[in-house]
Parts: sequence; structure tokens; C-alpha cells
Amino acid sequence: MKQIVMTAEKIAEITGGTLYGDPKREINEVSGIKDAAANHLSFAGNKKYEELLNSSAAGIVLVNKDLANVSTENRTIIVCDNVDYAFAKVTALFAEEPPAPVPGIHPTAAVDPTAEIGENVSIGANAVIEAGAKIGDNAVIGALCYIGHDAAVGAGTVLYPGVTVMYRCTVGAKCIIHPGVVIGGDGFGFVPGPNGLVKVPQTGIVTIGNDVEIGANTTIDRARFGKTVIKDNVKIDDQVMVAHNVVVGESSILVAQCGIAGSAELGRGVIIAGQAGINGHIYIGDGSQVAGTSSVVKTLPPGSIVVGTPAESQREFIARVAMPKKVQKLEAKLKELEAKLKELSK
Amino acid sequence: MKQIVMTAEKIAEITGGTLYGDPKREINEVSGIKDAAANHLSFAGNKKYEELLNSSAAGIVLVNKDLANVSTENRTIIVCDNVDYAFAKVTALFAEEPPAPVPGIHPTAAVDPTAEIGENVSIGANAVIEAGAKIGDNAVIGALCYIGHDAAVGAGTVLYPGVTVMYRCTVGAKCIIHPGVVIGGDGFGFVPGPNGLVKVPQTGIVTIGNDVEIGANTTIDRARFGKTVIKDNVKIDDQVMVAHNVVVGESSILVAQCGIAGSAELGRGVIIAGQAGINGHIYIGDGSQVAGTSSVVKTLPPGSIVVGTPAESQREFIARVAMPKKVQKLEAKLKELEAKLKELSK
Amino acid sequence: MKQIVMTAEKIAEITGGTLYGDPKREINEVSGIKDAAANHLSFAGNKKYEELLNSSAAGIVLVNKDLANVSTENRTIIVCDNVDYAFAKVTALFAEEPPAPVPGIHPTAAVDPTAEIGENVSIGANAVIEAGAKIGDNAVIGALCYIGHDAAVGAGTVLYPGVTVMYRCTVGAKCIIHPGVVIGGDGFGFVPGPNGLVKVPQTGIVTIGNDVEIGANTTIDRARFGKTVIKDNVKIDDQVMVAHNVVVGESSILVAQCGIAGSAELGRGVIIAGQAGINGHIYIGDGSQVAGTSSVVKTLPPGSIVVGTPAESQREFIARVAMPKKVQKLEAKLKELEAKLKELSK
Repeated sequence: MKQIVMTAEKIAEITGGTLYGDPKREINEVSGIKDAAANHLSFAGNKKYEELLNSSAAGIVLVNKDLANVSTENRTIIVCDNVDYAFAKVTALFAEEPPAPVPGIHPTAAVDPTAEIGENVSIGANAVIEAGAKIGDNAVIGALCYIGHDAAVGAGTVLYPGVTVMYRCTVGAKCIIHPGVVIGGDGFGFVPGPNGLVKVPQTGIVTIGNDVEIGANTTIDRARFGKTVIKDNVKIDDQVMVAHNVVVGESSILVAQCGIAGSAELGRGVIIAGQAGINGHIYIGDGSQVAGTSSVVKTLPPGSIVVGTPAESQREFIARVAMPKKVQKLEAKLKELEAKLKELSK
Repeated sequence: MKQIVMTAEKIAEITGGTLYGDPKREINEVSGIKDAAANHLSFAGNKKYEELLNSSAAGIVLVNKDLANVSTENRTIIVCDNVDYAFAKVTALFAEEPPAPVPGIHPTAAVDPTAEIGENVSIGANAVIEAGAKIGDNAVIGALCYIGHDAAVGAGTVLYPGVTVMYRCTVGAKCIIHPGVVIGGDGFGFVPGPNGLVKVPQTGIVTIGNDVEIGANTTIDRARFGKTVIKDNVKIDDQVMVAHNVVVGESSILVAQCGIAGSAELGRGVIIAGQAGINGHIYIGDGSQVAGTSSVVKTLPPGSIVVGTPAESQREFIARVAMPKKVQKLEAKLKELEAKLKELSK
Repeated sequence: MKQIVMTAEKIAEITGGTLYGDPKREINEVSGIKDAAANHLSFAGNKKYEELLNSSAAGIVLVNKDLANVSTENRTIIVCDNVDYAFAKVTALFAEEPPAPVPGIHPTAAVDPTAEIGENVSIGANAVIEAGAKIGDNAVIGALCYIGHDAAVGAGTVLYPGVTVMYRCTVGAKCIIHPGVVIGGDGFGFVPGPNGLVKVPQTGIVTIGNDVEIGANTTIDRARFGKTVIKDNVKIDDQVMVAHNVVVGESSILVAQCGIAGSAELGRGVIIAGQAGINGHIYIGDGSQVAGTSSVVKTLPPGSIVVGTPAESQREFIARVAMPKKVQKLEAKLKELEAKLKELSK
């Protein structure tokens, strides 16, 4: 972390929050509520954390409204509308920057002379840029990255080391792509032929919007024809699999190890949690949320919240989980009735 | 896509299908039924797509027999035995080729002088080929690939950029391997020892047949001893995990993110759908199909079709899914009986 | 395998086992019980393998106590306390060594002059070592590896080709890291802002202990702040996802394709089987075991053994699996009662 000292009143100013307690209290570090010391800023987003907060040594704590009346004896409290956002804003000021990319082309990089390289671009050691590729201004192409023929990377985008962008695929501006990501491998398509399985050519591309982030070792396959589309502001975690011809709407979130099968379409602001699976050729309406490890097999209307395999409503899922107990009760009741009936029939 | 104009009668000739409507109608593009315009060829594989087909503007449509009597007023219909195969055949003619590999060894590649490089081989920028490796004629080793000591890659096989083939492993002829694939990492084996877990040496290899395709970031582990075997014509999607000593039979299909645990053996023509898991040391009979996200824990006879966790028949799975409703009905019935009994006992 | 001939009495000496049958019998290969021939050493760990053992041609077989009385007519039996460990010990002697790393820095590697490289280090072709990185004595940095700014790799650790260690992250001594592993990609954190999702800076690191093994294409994310921690002797399989701020305790085992969500903490000796998922912000007690494909959503006390989604005890899981049959029985019984009641009410 950077060596910065900050007062509570300064933090209240930055976050727009309301301060309770000593405005002059100082911190020089940020940390989670469990590990926080007197010289730390921390945060508590909801009532669940009240106990932890009470036993925490944190000097200054950002809290939401329902924690506004915790003791300010040994700490200063700042009540914020959106604690997560406020804490992220302050944390960013303490964050040690990642190492700054060195502008220019590393002498070991293999850059085809026909590639178009923008202003102030950084290309790392042993990176490979093929013929016809276009790299936008201020972009960073990490060491050992591969940019295929006629592929494009937008302005200000950062590719960390070891990213592969296959031929003709395009990545927008201000994206962040983590190591090991593969954009534009072939979609998976085969048909039975006379002598075994025959490959269906995958002649399309992948196109990725602006402000997209993609986690380590995620794979996004090129379309059978046309495009696999990741729209603006989409955030994708590690080891996610996006199949051919999928469309992911603006500001959607795909959490680690989830998979989206071919030609599925996700609306805006959809959240697919970790290890969940979305069937091919279905539509997930705007703002829908799919719980972790769930399998969605049918189209979902906007605003759906589903869980389970096959996915159903939370109410249905909870009822299903509770079934064994319910059946046990039925069994007991049935025995009771049987006994009564026996007695009656005597 | 390539700039080609094709008549309906030419397409009927290529596919061996039966033409209804104007044989002179021309198209210059191929696309899905939803997006198709008057100058497009499209396809509809079954009755489910009838409505979409009727509202589609596609100029020429390949259909299967049960769609043979759709209107030919604004379109030409070609009835095919295997629509998917026929459409793939025509699509291949329109497909823009991937960039052609440049024959020869890129000057930045590090090729050990003892490696045997076949005729007309292409080795990309910054690739690494270790001592004793053998690369067959016409093979393509993409940029940033790693071919380990004494490993072998067969004739005509294409390794896209960033593929790793570890020491002594072998890949057959005419395979396609996508970026980030790792062939021959150690199998996962440890035994409790006096001072913690002790590694079980993984001394075997991976051997991959001919005409195999492997998707991005898939991993196939080397055997404990002997071989992990992928037989001819097997097709593997992205992010699949094949553990040590597994055998995958001819023409089997492993869909994205599925995992095959150690020493499992899959017969011919098996299909493991996305995110499914196959237990170790079991056998999956020829032609079996495992539904997405299922977990198979026991050996399956040939031709099995299973779903769920633990995997069961489709009939059993559907019954299980319907259970909450069934139990609700039982509950209602039980209440009814209880009431009757009460009345009777008065 | 190495060309070695070994007698049964020698093997008994190495394993500390008790020999039954001919002590002079010789083998020159090791293999699984199914494939074993007369010149092979094999093993059978429990009663389940008795039939296979009886029909096996293996010349010498390591067995555990409950198989001590199998026939020694055509074979020699060695009874061991821990068959797996004993077999691994002998197998290691037959194991052909992986190719020996070449000490020194390959001329194509890009090593920053400020990096500190220990004694007898091997750095492979086209590897990249950034400024301030530290590589311990006898470490092996495979071809095409990337070691970021100020990152550290401990003495005797082996990084196979294509491993990425991002800036400031640390790997301990005597670790083995397989191809495609990414250590220190950003944790996944975003908050809704006025113009879409806003990145939460991930300013921490990953720190990995000694004697850790990590399988191909696994990803371990850097902490939001502080550290993501993998403690000594932890063994991680392929394609595992460890999110930011996770702590994995000593000698724990993470099997292929499992995922550990952010800030979860695993105790010592925990086993998470394949494709399982651990929720964020929970604690898994020492020695707990989570079955394959299970989802753990709540903290588990030490020694827990759980299965299913959401995870429950084995007894509960078995009862849940058996539910459809139970309900069928209840249904039948209910019909019976109904009939009796009808008769009675006449």
C-alpha cells in the first residue's frame, strides 16, 4: 500500500458520508473488519457484521444506515449510502499501482511490419503480433501475448501476459484481460459423417465491447458464422466458458467457472453465479440472477431469480430442499391414521 | 465470408437433397434462420423451427423431411436426409479460410537441433521445441507453443498458439488443438506420508489418436504409469479435464467443462455433455450419453442415457423433479382421509 | 520405465512389508492389477479388488491385511500397512526421470538485469523475468514462463512451461507448478456505479507455501488487500479456481475443477473433491471432506463429511436420493388406507 495518512473528515468528504465521533482520527491503511487495527480504515456493509464490528479495533469504519448507532468510543463511524462503493473509492487511493508498463516494443517481441501500432503502446517481451493486427493508442500488450492476423485491440486496453486473441477477433477500449484468456478458439460443432464426426467450420469471430474485464484462463469461442458478442461493461471472472454465437448484454456479470452454451443470449445486467450453466439457444431476460451451480434449461423472463438443477424459483428450491423432512412427517401421520383405522375397524 | 454466388440447383447437387421451388434462386451468404435475408441460405433441422422458418426471409432453406411441405412462395426448399451435415458442407464452401500458416521456422522460435522437423512444417514466433521432439510433415506449430523432449506431433496436425505438449507425449495426425491446451501435466496422486502428503510419481504419457480436436484451455494429464489415451476422431471442447490413465474411445464427444476422473474408461461414441463429471475407475459403455452437469458414479452399460446427480435414467430424473408436486398431492389426500376418519369415528 | 530387475525380498525390504510365497521371484515393471503380467509388480488396496487380483497374472502383488490370505501359487504377496504409499515408493524407483533441466539462462529468455537469480537456476527458452523478481537456488523456470515485477520463486521449485506468476506474488520452496497456471490475476470485485460496474482495486498478493503442487490451468487470484494464502504441502489439481483472500490450510487437497469463492478459509487436511464449490466468506474445519460436485454454503465444523447441493451429511444425502421410492411406497399405503376407509364407511 501507498504511505498515506488520512483523517476521518477527509474520508467523509471523499465518500460523501456522515461522520460520527472524532473527525481528526487518522488511519494509514485499509483492511477487512476482522484484521483491522487502530490505524486502519475498514467497513461493514450490513447488520450481519455488527458483532465483528463491535469487537474490531478499526480506527475508522464505513457503515451503512442500519449500523449508524454503533459505539463511537474508540472509533469514528462514517455512514454511507453505498458502503461497498465508498470503501472501493478510498481503497483505490491507498492502492499501490501495478508496475507501470514500459512504452514501446520490447526487442524480443515479434511484431509483423503490417500490424498497425497506436501511440504510446507497450508491447511486452516475447509477445507476438501477426500481420494486419491493430493495437489502439495507450494499449498494453503483455509479455507472451498473441494477437492474431487482422485482430484488433482497442485504445487503453490492458492485456496481461499470456493472453491469446485469435485472427479477426476484436477487443474494445479500456478493457482488462487477465493471463491465459483465449478469445476466438473455434466453436464446438461436429456432425456425424460417413467416416466419423466431421467438423462444422467456425467462420465467425468474437467481438468484445468497451470496459469489459475478463478473468484468468477464461475462453470465449468464435462464432459458427457471424459473431460471439460480449457487450460493454460486462465483467467475466476466471475459467468462464462462453460458447460460439453467445450474446452477453451490457453490464452483465459471469462468475468463475460458469458456462454459457452455444447461441444463448443474456440480457443487460444479468448475473450468472459461479459454476452455473446456461443451456444453448435460450434467452435470459434483463436483470435476471442465476444462483451458483444452477443449470438453466429454459428461457427466463426479465428479472428472474432462479436456483437449482433444473433451475426453479427460490421458493420452489427451498421447498425441494425441505422435502425429506416433509415426507417424514407424512409418513408419521400415515402411520397414525393407519393405527386409528385399525382400532376403528375392530 | 467468401464472395460466392450459388444457385439452389447447385446447392441441391452438393447436398444430394430434393429441390422444391425455383431452382435458379441465388444466395451469396449463409446464416441462421432468425437472421437470414433473401440472399441467404439457411436451414431448419426439425418441426420446432417451423414457425421461425415461416417468418424467415431466407431465400433458400435446407430442411428435413417433416418440413418438406412448407410454402415455397418466396423461397426455395431443399429436403435433405441430414440437414446439419448438408448445411455444414455448403457452409464450408463460403467459409473464409483461417490465415494460412507460413512454412518454415520463425527466426524467434527456439528449436533444439536434435528435434526432427518434417517437410513443409510451419513453426510460429517464439515457439519452443525441445530435444528429440518429432514434428510430422505439414504440421503447424503455432506461435508460443511448447513441444517437450521426445514428444511427437503427427502429420498435418495444427497446434494453435500457446499449446503445451509435455515430454514424451504423442499427438496423432490431422488433429486440431486450440490455444492454452496442456497435454501431459502430471496426474494428481498423493499418499499420506510421515511428514504430510507425498507425491506419487506420474511416469506415463498421454497418447492422442488421429483426427482429434481439443478445445481451448483443456487439460489432459499424463498417466501414473502406462498411457492416458484419447482415441481417433474424439472431439473435446474447451476447459475439459481428462485425468491420468483415462481412456476415451473413438468418436466420443466431451463437451465444455466436463471432467473425467482417473482411470475411467469411455467406450466408442460416448457423449459427455457440459459440466458433467465421470467418477474414477468406472466404465461408460459404447454410445452412452450423459446429460449436462450430471455426475456418473457407477459403470454404465452400452447405450445408457443418464441425467442427474447421482446419474439416473431420464424417467427417474423427471419423476424426481416432479416430486414436490406429488408430495403436495399426497399431503392433500392425507388430510382428506384424516377428516373422513374423524367423521367416521364420531 | 527404467530397466531394473527387482526381487520380491528386495521389495519387501523397501516397503517394510511381510512376504508370502517365493522371495526370489523377480519383476522388471510396475503396472495396474488389470494389465499386470508375470514380470510385473502390482497392488490391491482393498477387498473390492480380490476378484481382479485372483485373475491377475502379476508376479508380485502388494496387498493390505484383509487380502493377506490370497493364493501364492503363481505369485508372491507382500502385505503392507499402507499399500498406496508402499507401491508409490517402489514405483518411484522404476520411474524414468523427467528430462533434466539445463542449468543457466536460455539465450532467448528475457531476464531483467535487476532480477535476482540464485545459484544453479534453469531458465527456459523465451521465458520472461521482470524487474526485481527473485528466483531461489536450484529453481527451474520453464520455457515461456512469466515472472512478474518483484515476484519471488523459492529454492528448488519447478515451474513447468507456460506458468504465470504476477507482480509481487510469492511461491515457496520445493513447489511443482504445472503448465498454464496463473497466480495473481485480479480478484473479481465490482460495485454498481453511476455509469455501470466499477472495478474494486485488487491491491493484495498471492503467497504460496513450501511443497505445494498446482495442476495445469489452475488460477489463484490476488487479494483485494492483504493476501490470498496457500499454506505448506497443499496439493491442487488441474483447473481449480481459488478466489481472492481465500486461505487454504496445510496439507489440504483441492481436486480438479473445484472452486473456492472469495474469503473462504479452509483448515488443515481438508479435501475438496472434483467440481465441488465452496461459498465465499465461510470456514471449512480441519480434516473436513467435501464430495465431488457438492456445494457448501455454510461453515463446516472440523471433521465434517458432506455431499450434495446444498451440502448435507452422507446419511441425509442417501435418504434424499432414496426419496422417490419412499414416496411411491407412501402413495401405495395411502391408497390402501383409502380403500379400507371406504369399505369401513359403507
